[in-house]
Amino acid sequence: MAASSSYPLKDDLDIVIPTIRNLDFLEMWRPFFQPYHLIIVQDGDPSRTIKVPDGFDYELYNRNDINKILGPKASCISFKDSACRCFGYMVSKKKYIFTIDDDCFVAKDPTGKDIDALQQHINNLLHPSTPYFFNTLYDPFSDGADFVRGYPFSLREGVPTAVSHGLWLNIPDYDAPTQLVKPRERNTRYVDAVMTLPKGILFPMCGMNLAFDRNLIGPAMYFGLMGDGQPIGRYDDMWAGWCVKVICDHLGLGIKTGLPYIWHSKASNPFVNLKKEYKGIFWQEEIIPFFQDATLPKECTTVQACYKELSKQVKDKLGKIDPYFVKLADSMVTWIDAWEELNPSTKETNGK
Amino acid sequence: MAASSSYPLKDDLDIVIPTIRNLDFLEMWRPFFQPYHLIIVQDGDPSRTIKVPDGFDYELYNRNDINKILGPKASCISFKDSACRCFGYMVSKKKYIFTIDDDCFVAKDPTGKDIDALQQHINNLLHPSTPYFFNTLYDPFSDGADFVRGYPFSLREGVPTAVSHGLWLNIPDYDAPTQLVKPRERNTRYVDAVMTLPKGILFPMCGMNLAFDRNLIGPAMYFGLMGDGQPIGRYDDMWAGWCVKVICDHLGLGIKTGLPYIWHSKASNPFVNLKKEYKGIFWQEEIIPFFQDATLPKECTTVQACYKELSKQVKDKLGKIDPYFVKLADSMVTWIDAWEELNPSTKETNGK
Repeated sequence: MAASSSYPLKDDLDIVIPTIRNLDFLEMWRPFFQPYHLIIVQDGDPSRTIKVPDGFDYELYNRNDINKILGPKASCISFKDSACRCFGYMVSKKKYIFTIDDDCFVAKDPTGKDIDALQQHINNLLHPSTPYFFNTLYDPFSDGADFVRGYPFSLREGVPTAVSHGLWLNIPDYDAPTQLVKPRERNTRYVDAVMTLPKGILFPMCGMNLAFDRNLIGPAMYFGLMGDGQPIGRYDDMWAGWCVKVICDHLGLGIKTGLPYIWHSKASNPFVNLKKEYKGIFWQEEIIPFFQDATLPKECTTVQACYKELSKQVKDKLGKIDPYFVKLADSMVTWIDAWEELNPSTKETNGK
Repeated sequence: MAASSSYPLKDDLDIVIPTIRNLDFLEMWRPFFQPYHLIIVQDGDPSRTIKVPDGFDYELYNRNDINKILGPKASCISFKDSACRCFGYMVSKKKYIFTIDDDCFVAKDPTGKDIDALQQHINNLLHPSTPYFFNTLYDPFSDGADFVRGYPFSLREGVPTAVSHGLWLNIPDYDAPTQLVKPRERNTRYVDAVMTLPKGILFPMCGMNLAFDRNLIGPAMYFGLMGDGQPIGRYDDMWAGWCVKVICDHLGLGIKTGLPYIWHSKASNPFVNLKKEYKGIFWQEEIIPFFQDATLPKECTTVQACYKELSKQVKDKLGKIDPYFVKLADSMVTWIDAWEELNPSTKETNGK
């Protein structure tokens, strides 16, 4: 079942990297990334020059570029927060997006071999998901695996996979309180599994090592309003994940989590993180029940329609928590408008 | 967090083994099982003598014993099918049950060390489950793991774990069609993870390597009517798993799956299996939606009350498929009656 090593074709995939510094980390990824096109979203001071190692094919957007391209709609793209990466999803024209943080390096599997994260993500995306019933031997489309006894045959065809969520060895993706309590904890457990997230359950989607099918779910991959001028940070990928999961469940699309691993090199500062996160820690206690209960009307048959409907529900139900959510709901609409402006042919993105 | 190697105490656990043959397989388990009490449920011809290796502490029940103990209620215990094992759950008086098939041997972990399946099961049962939100680093109560960023703090306490579902290296638990199509497939993937099955999703529970908290969920662990005189076999554990999952979801109890592995030594005959299974393969296409939609009224606050309510729904909704389900529904009630007769003090089993 494995995808051939030459897949994906160069024309099918963009790698999106948000950064504020020189991209020396690409040296280690050269054997895997060099064949592909990079979209670099430069955060922070636009006058700073970001150095990219020789030999990579890339385009780079700083804040001035974003403002120029989107005009007033640039307000929906976060500044001074890696949430800005979603601008890269919007300007891409490829089928697949792989996004990775610039402090993530090539991990090794238990045999000591370098892990080709990109290929494993694409392999996840190329095979169906199984969100309606749990397979105890994990992804039935993995080599040497299948559906176990008792798995209904009518559900074995599965559904298209929209998202592949990869994990991290070394520094785990902990919140500030957990970082503070367990400063020395490292993830050394290589779990050799990919699985579909069941329908109806939410998960914490991390943007550090993430791939998705832009044609299936792109317009829902909005990383929200974070960072400069906003009361919250470090919830960009979480926000996207909750929206994406509700929409995938509604449209009959799948999300996989597990392999591939990357090597996450350094923990961010827990004190800085706590400042960014603390409102989110309160708010998520209301946000999660909101998304758990969210339902979309059957008239919503495209990702865009689903997303706009969700923005209305955010405004109505989360707006009561804090005015921030009214602003966020408006930005969700701006995001869709900007997406359609830049991608006029994808107005009917509906996972088919 | 790991349970000490001396846990569980002898007084807290019974090992239930259904069999039709001499229990030579216990020799390999001696270092792990010998401290515990075994309940052997002899299937088939009761005049046959089952040899148990020296040094094990056991009680053995054959069909004559079952008939004598349960009287007319013995009709709810299957004959000529490993579903008879659930009689052992009923006569036990211990807190934990571990049940294992007699063709399952000690597996080795990737370092070559023998896996103490019993201890890993108890460890799973001693730590909470997290059915309401998915943790991407799997069981947050494992060594070196925790809840990841974005996991709501209010859900981190978890819920009591009622069931620990272990897996199998070597021969995977496939249905007859998959066995026929992939006769040479072996499971060689050691997935170093335990996870909670999310609320609202069903799974195929295999009885080969299974542990549970009898006080929390025992009365729902009925393996149905299979084998001799019945139109179906090999759905005993599946049936129990579907009922147990619906009831755990209703009562706020957790089910874990993953580690520990056992070594499953030999595949059963796929032609014989196909004969046993073929009605189940059709029927499960209606049974699964039934269980997916099943809800229990909030008045049902004990496992027994939940189970009796479920038996009514089985009769009403599945009785239309085949008269077998009417008989099964009646047996579910008989099972509860027999359970309460043998366990008069547990009438209020409610997971608290």
